[in-house]
Amino acid sequence: MADRPPARIGYLGSQQDQTNIENLLAQSVTDGYDFVVLPLSKPRLRERIQQQISASAISRLPQASATQLLDSDVNITTLGAATRAWIEPDSKDDLAASISKEILHREIEYASYCGIPHIILPAPKRRHRIVQYAQALKSALGCSTHAQVSVHLPISEEDFQSSPTLEKTIQSDPLSLWEVWNTIRSVCDYHPRLSVALQIPPRLPVNPVVLNRWFTEPIKALVISSNTFLSNAKGFPVLSKTHQLMITRFMALNPFVILQDTDTLERNGGKLSYLQYIRYLHRSIPPSTATERFTAGYQDFLQTPLQPLMDNLESMTYEVFEKDPVKYSLYEKAIHKALSARPKNGLVIVAVVGAGRGPLVTCTLRAARELGRTIELFAIEKNPNAFVTLQRRKAEEWGERVQLVRSDIRSWDPPILVDILISELLGSFGDNELSPECIDGAQRVLNPDRGISIPASYTAHITPIMTPKLYANISKYTAPSPYDTPYVVLLTAFDSLSNETAQIWEFQHPNLSIVPENLKDNVHNRRSGKASFHVGDAGVVHGIAGYFEAVLYGDIELSIRPNSIDKKNKDMISWFPIFFPLKTPIYVPQNCDIQVMFWRETDGRKVWYEWIVEVFMNVTGSDGFMTGRKIKISMSDLHNAGGKGSHIGM
Amino acid sequence: MADRPPARIGYLGSQQDQTNIENLLAQSVTDGYDFVVLPLSKPRLRERIQQQISASAISRLPQASATQLLDSDVNITTLGAATRAWIEPDSKDDLAASISKEILHREIEYASYCGIPHIILPAPKRRHRIVQYAQALKSALGCSTHAQVSVHLPISEEDFQSSPTLEKTIQSDPLSLWEVWNTIRSVCDYHPRLSVALQIPPRLPVNPVVLNRWFTEPIKALVISSNTFLSNAKGFPVLSKTHQLMITRFMALNPFVILQDTDTLERNGGKLSYLQYIRYLHRSIPPSTATERFTAGYQDFLQTPLQPLMDNLESMTYEVFEKDPVKYSLYEKAIHKALSARPKNGLVIVAVVGAGRGPLVTCTLRAARELGRTIELFAIEKNPNAFVTLQRRKAEEWGERVQLVRSDIRSWDPPILVDILISELLGSFGDNELSPECIDGAQRVLNPDRGISIPASYTAHITPIMTPKLYANISKYTAPSPYDTPYVVLLTAFDSLSNETAQIWEFQHPNLSIVPENLKDNVHNRRSGKASFHVGDAGVVHGIAGYFEAVLYGDIELSIRPNSIDKKNKDMISWFPIFFPLKTPIYVPQNCDIQVMFWRETDGRKVWYEWIVEVFMNVTGSDGFMTGRKIKISMSDLHNAGGKGSHIGM
Repeated sequence: MADRPPARIGYLGSQQDQTNIENLLAQSVTDGYDFVVLPLSKPRLRERIQQQISASAISRLPQASATQLLDSDVNITTLGAATRAWIEPDSKDDLAASISKEILHREIEYASYCGIPHIILPAPKRRHRIVQYAQALKSALGCSTHAQVSVHLPISEEDFQSSPTLEKTIQSDPLSLWEVWNTIRSVCDYHPRLSVALQIPPRLPVNPVVLNRWFTEPIKALVISSNTFLSNAKGFPVLSKTHQLMITRFMALNPFVILQDTDTLERNGGKLSYLQYIRYLHRSIPPSTATERFTAGYQDFLQTPLQPLMDNLESMTYEVFEKDPVKYSLYEKAIHKALSARPKNGLVIVAVVGAGRGPLVTCTLRAARELGRTIELFAIEKNPNAFVTLQRRKAEEWGERVQLVRSDIRSWDPPILVDILISELLGSFGDNELSPECIDGAQRVLNPDRGISIPASYTAHITPIMTPKLYANISKYTAPSPYDTPYVVLLTAFDSLSNETAQIWEFQHPNLSIVPENLKDNVHNRRSGKASFHVGDAGVVHGIAGYFEAVLYGDIELSIRPNSIDKKNKDMISWFPIFFPLKTPIYVPQNCDIQVMFWRETDGRKVWYEWIVEVFMNVTGSDGFMTGRKIKISMSDLHNAGGKGSHIGM
Repeated sequence: MADRPPARIGYLGSQQDQTNIENLLAQSVTDGYDFVVLPLSKPRLRERIQQQISASAISRLPQASATQLLDSDVNITTLGAATRAWIEPDSKDDLAASISKEILHREIEYASYCGIPHIILPAPKRRHRIVQYAQALKSALGCSTHAQVSVHLPISEEDFQSSPTLEKTIQSDPLSLWEVWNTIRSVCDYHPRLSVALQIPPRLPVNPVVLNRWFTEPIKALVISSNTFLSNAKGFPVLSKTHQLMITRFMALNPFVILQDTDTLERNGGKLSYLQYIRYLHRSIPPSTATERFTAGYQDFLQTPLQPLMDNLESMTYEVFEKDPVKYSLYEKAIHKALSARPKNGLVIVAVVGAGRGPLVTCTLRAARELGRTIELFAIEKNPNAFVTLQRRKAEEWGERVQLVRSDIRSWDPPILVDILISELLGSFGDNELSPECIDGAQRVLNPDRGISIPASYTAHITPIMTPKLYANISKYTAPSPYDTPYVVLLTAFDSLSNETAQIWEFQHPNLSIVPENLKDNVHNRRSGKASFHVGDAGVVHGIAGYFEAVLYGDIELSIRPNSIDKKNKDMISWFPIFFPLKTPIYVPQNCDIQVMFWRETDGRKVWYEWIVEVFMNVTGSDGFMTGRKIKISMSDLHNAGGKGSHIGM
């Protein structure tokens, strides 16, 4: 609980509440609310404007005045504000639309002047005029420098009775309201102060795609009407189990909760019982797991991938990764198995390359002890700082069984050929921290007949994802090519567009076909791969999520691929996914194929990735079946061509 | 003829020509060729590589060497080079593709080292691997800093016999080869050194869309095989009438002409007769018209629209526009008509607002003289420099009939109400030089009962266009928002995606509904408009072309809209179209609707345009008929939101 911010709960006030705002706010604090949402303008403004519209008189728009807007001189920090439903920048009537736009500007300017932190906007009313609505909203956003503006939207058309604001689509589409939002925020260019106030309906949508989709979006408020509550046996308001689950999930986004119509439905416990119930619900969210605590703060946090070959890691970084409860146990199993595979009485030469602060040295010593094998163990490390730790541990723990070598593994000249070469150079994409180049450079120390590399092989896997939050964050970066860089990130507010991931390439070790020149030109470590993903529901591709799988030795495998994570691997904390963004998000209509191509390029001095996305629409016949024909509808840029935005130095 | 650069004609040499390049080049100069294109590598290189591929040995790629490549020590300035058809970066075989890519790099590096200015690349062979081909090409372009690289492509699949390089599409699509090129140059990001060597087939495509499309592209070479020529009565090679027309048209792009297989087909006049015929053809292109001469150098040249309200025009600018043979004649007709409409014996008060150097003053005086009317004429001009010219002309030509007023027309206080207010403030989009704001500001001097404005009304018209050249040019601009700015440009290398233009808004003068406050807030001059365009063939939208039409007075109209230009308006030189670019080009599959929305926004201090494009695909049933269903497939950014990239100061 301690790691979760307190719930912020308020209610949607009515016209009448405007009369004495100071008293109202004082009462709401006493009642235990955190804020109140009130209409921004008073009924008189509407009257005046409607007169003008009916008279086709655009000559002069009413100015904000005390009689027309909220009072500005109350203590307003606990106040949200809602612009009025009669403001229709998407009106069919050009004059009404133009005036609405102007009023919207003035209301937001005024709210901003009053210091109101959060403004709720009514949903657009006309599906064919959403772009107009969005264009008006975009310019209105410029009228404030700080106010958060949320568009009040129902979850889906299934919830239409409760929010009859928008015309229905012809074919009822569970994502049609998300599509409305997607158009608005695209036109508004993923504006950082634009968000959604999501109306929680009495009946939640059946299709899980709908909630998953909203979960990726900037939900700044949940609006819950009293009629969404059930009555429990004692007549107190409660939410259904599915509502509880849904709200608990969305609480992770830390939204405001806005109660609506608490006066109109009579329940036991009075109108405050709704507030008390939501507070109770928030308190009863189960506490975080150990893994959740470890990863807290990393959700959707974009990190540049490590470059262990070029940079020296800090002790803290080693410390963090050594805590992984799963990874080193799997490594130890693999080492155990590899040692078992050697003749019982012979000496086994083992080298841990990139030993860091020594966790794999410990694993190896333990496995050898368990098996009663005699080993000679070399620990190679280039980082002079980590080497100090190794020296200390050798002196205090390991003794003469371990020989320390301070060297880049690619230039180490061992006194004897090695039987087992152990390394932990895998990145989130497998090869992205140059594991192939390092092991290639070290394999000349390996016994060519019987030498084993742990890991023995690894593969890179991809899937296209929707993640407006990461896109919006990257778009704020001022670096020259922020879209030509992969990021390591604990993907949280994202939606998989496909249920599948696809393997695009593999590396195997040792690679006996390479010749010495290859260590310079590195051409044998070039790869390219292509994968196609079927996407049933409409969405937006913001980039490609990348994962890896590795065979450490024999049947001991390691995977961060979401589909393959079993119970054991689940708590592995060493790797977050890697994310390859797209410069321009690509809209994908329903029933399309997303084709992704990846290249791993090298010029002998550095390694980089290039990626490109194409979208093809599957043509269905009038019978609704696919015809097999595909029409290309869009293509991304070729990202990071020539390594212009990112590379890994060899 | 003098304004046209000389033709540059060469021929495609063969393997055998590589043996003594120095002699070969000397002979070709004697023969009258401007250059020779030779294969870059010798057959030995191919043998060696094919051995490697068959042995799956990627260990070491052959280095460029004297025995494998062209000699570098010949005088090579008249040499083009062709990489070999057996280089297949789009090979199905990963190893062959990777080696081809490496060879391509080395060949282009080597050609660049030799100073070869132009490299021809064989077309891709596999439709499903065009992106691979393009990715390889993009990195190869980085291997030279100056060489022009042309992809050798047939015009269309109809020409398949003559260039059997690429698999046919299932449904023969006349634009399928253009689609191949479009993918290549999109992946290569409109690279300035990437172009097309277009193969001219014996039978030209029937569909005019195909040639129009290629005409928009960077065609740097035309490749004409001897079998494309006919024999005339004397047995000499000639081209068909349609070929002549086509080549004459493409000569405007100033391409190299590369003759092919001139040895293999025996004609009268020998192999040089082809060269002589092309020289003859080039000489016989008809000389430019007066309008062409006037506009020479302006083709596809991007200009920032004039801001006559904020800037003072230079005398040369006036000079240029006063030369228009059509515009002032139409104005004079309109003035004539407006004067005729007034009672015969009364005095007519006329004001020319924004008189410049006085062309409309002269027109007005002439019309009044012809009609025998008495007028009092005010010439108002704010530009102090132009005013000097007006003063001189009053002294020398006009005398007391004309009163000069140095003032902004919006603050002129006339001694008497005006009957006819004449202005020439129309921009390419009608209102884009703030004609509405200026005339509004001046109309208070107009007699409210019978006052006439010339122009009386004007409308803005749009159509989406494809123009890769302009897109590529704008993409090089380093200004902060080059895509949020409209440009005035003589559109030349462009293709209309639709046959239609659509009107999006209108202004009428005088506008009697405005009140004094409007001159400050200007809200009445806000406009928005929406238009939908059906697009039959696949293409790319790079932006929106804008035009205007105006009613000067009565039935005297002025139009720069391409569909409405009659014989008279054709020679009007005062206005080029206006072009509103898109930040990211949008691919449009066949049978789509492009929906364009425009806004004219104002905050009382400035005026700006915003624009956005959406693409919808029309769903056809299995019977091939449209179902009426439309699926949104893409949307552009909202351009110039809030005027962030461009505005016109009031």
